Amino acid sequence: MSSRLNHIEPFRVMDIVRTARAMSDVIHLEIGEPDLPPSPAVREALAANLDKMAYTNSLGLWELRVKIADYYQQHYHVSINPERVILTVGTSGAFLITYALLMSAGERLLLTDPAYPCYKNFAHILDIEPVFAKISAANNYQLQASDLATFDHIRALQISSPSNPTGTVYQPDILRDLIQTCQAQNTYFISDEIYHGLVYGKAAESLQTALHYSDEAIVINGFSKYFALPGLRLGFAILPESLMRHAEILMQNLYISAPTLSQYAALAAFDTDYLQGLRARYQSRRDYLYQALSPWFDLDAPSDGGFYIWANISRYQIDSERFCQILLEKAGVAITPGTDFSQHQARDYVRFAYTRPLDELKQAVKRIEQGLKNFESIS
Amino acid sequence: MSSRLNHIEPFRVMDIVRTARAMSDVIHLEIGEPDLPPSPAVREALAANLDKMAYTNSLGLWELRVKIADYYQQHYHVSINPERVILTVGTSGAFLITYALLMSAGERLLLTDPAYPCYKNFAHILDIEPVFAKISAANNYQLQASDLATFDHIRALQISSPSNPTGTVYQPDILRDLIQTCQAQNTYFISDEIYHGLVYGKAAESLQTALHYSDEAIVINGFSKYFALPGLRLGFAILPESLMRHAEILMQNLYISAPTLSQYAALAAFDTDYLQGLRARYQSRRDYLYQALSPWFDLDAPSDGGFYIWANISRYQIDSERFCQILLEKAGVAITPGTDFSQHQARDYVRFAYTRPLDELKQAVKRIEQGLKNFESIS
Repeated sequence: MSSRLNHIEPFRVMDIVRTARAMSDVIHLEIGEPDLPPSPAVREALAANLDKMAYTNSLGLWELRVKIADYYQQHYHVSINPERVILTVGTSGAFLITYALLMSAGERLLLTDPAYPCYKNFAHILDIEPVFAKISAANNYQLQASDLATFDHIRALQISSPSNPTGTVYQPDILRDLIQTCQAQNTYFISDEIYHGLVYGKAAESLQTALHYSDEAIVINGFSKYFALPGLRLGFAILPESLMRHAEILMQNLYISAPTLSQYAALAAFDTDYLQGLRARYQSRRDYLYQALSPWFDLDAPSDGGFYIWANISRYQIDSERFCQILLEKAGVAITPGTDFSQHQARDYVRFAYTRPLDELKQAVKRIEQGLKNFESIS
Repeated sequence: MSSRLNHIEPFRVMDIVRTARAMSDVIHLEIGEPDLPPSPAVREALAANLDKMAYTNSLGLWELRVKIADYYQQHYHVSINPERVILTVGTSGAFLITYALLMSAGERLLLTDPAYPCYKNFAHILDIEPVFAKISAANNYQLQASDLATFDHIRALQISSPSNPTGTVYQPDILRDLIQTCQAQNTYFISDEIYHGLVYGKAAESLQTALHYSDEAIVINGFSKYFALPGLRLGFAILPESLMRHAEILMQNLYISAPTLSQYAALAAFDTDYLQGLRARYQSRRDYLYQALSPWFDLDAPSDGGFYIWANISRYQIDSERFCQILLEKAGVAITPGTDFSQHQARDYVRFAYTRPLDELKQAVKRIEQGLKNFESIS
């Protein structure tokens, strides 16, 4: 088989999902998949477009590209030519296209550790070399511009804010400095903004997007999290003008186009009032779970956005994979080990996703408390 | 930008589609997209599943994997463990996964020339080296086992039957010999069977799939052509057992999963009576168009399957791209130049897709006749 597979590890959470789903009476806090339904308007849009079975233009439905540009105008006060928006097969498709566009085999992509595991695997598939900048409680889980100096020959930097798995939202000044430093040294800046919309009481929304700081930043976003439409497999990228024609050629070849029904559904997804309601529910879950877990774990990351809590388990003196296995088998609670996201903190951290209703979270906390009280006997 | 883009050319037909759609009164014979609607059962299945918005298992809905295995049992009399079927984002997704699985950067993939243009571009994106075996009227547009000896260090061979752009269906003995020769020399055999079902009066269906000859062959197929569901972006691959775990890891990372609604829709797509009706309509179009074009072009490929006619234009002593441009602008008929599919025959061939109703085909033929009668004056 191909040598590019040597470096690729399973996306463990997907394996855990499968194991956990095969068991009875498990509370699922492992996968970052919204449990709340999308706006009813989406269902109506789908029902009205069931005969749309043709390919779309490779870059996507023009009306949807315009809608996305409008959304960025309204929410972030940035003016984007809709021509710069491309519809992709999930944010996954946007990562593949962006990485394939920007980096040759052997070139280096700077990522944070911890980070979403697929970033590095997209790099490995394309024989790009991922390089990792450690982030931790010491720097509030935010890469600093000054950190860049310690890495040579970086072609692109990829961050996410809000971050998976830590829940961190970058401070505006830190984000600005990072972007400016990248531009000064000709490093592409890629901003994964898939958890945008799910930010709890932080800086003005307009300061959260990389596009506020530079038109050269590459923004990746989609409909799987805030918009609650993971099954559509629909993401988008906002690219600098200079990359557009090459992005189109890659789209034509790699995907032909994004799924058609998904694009029609997404036209109806921008239902602000409804979405604010979803955010409020995630926030109340976050408020509850963060507090309820804090006696049992060292929570050194804030969970200011997204729907994850990154929790240190070192007091239990056990490897995180084994910890998750025990919690699943003995307490019926599925969570994800740090090893999915990290090398340097992997064994000491686990990730909770609050993508279940509050009553389930409460039940999960009871089970966890019970298990951890008797941890020595069950482990 | 990345050096991997140096070798990638636009998928010209997608550009032609865009130009042609922006014009008025054009007959579209350029894109290989079914114009006939899918089975009404698909629409019903979609309407009944509009609330299915979660990710599926990375390898796809189990019921659909079983359905595909059953389909291969019924139509080809081959017994496939459903575990070997993976649902992908179009056949495009299946190519990316298969190539990434089988070949390291620098390894060689043998393709035919002409062939579907994206094959070589998937290779370029992954820094795999595509190598081309010329096929032509001299060998009935079918690669022969004896041709393999002229190529060194081939890791995988990819063919398609029925073939795009030539319409060729491989003879069973030629297909068998190719597969056996590949196995004898440890070359992976990849069979693109996306045009299966659309075969007109040839050998028994059971002899058309590579799986009839070997369980080690890799079959790629999907719902975009025969099943008339291109917008679903849903394909599948049938892989040898030994590749399954690695394929799953790649699926998890590259796509998470195929679009969910598309998978539910596809469950209802296996409507044999309806699909036989579609095939009959394509066949009557083929019968008409092949005969109607034959006074004007040298048709040296048979169009035994799929929905394409590969036509030699050398009598007009003009480059195929220019020919297509003139036909579009002066006669209002959009077709695709050979340069999308070929190096060695590129300038002398064009491709017609009979994916429009018979009355439009007749009108197109009139326009073509009119244009070619006065070709010197319009060119």
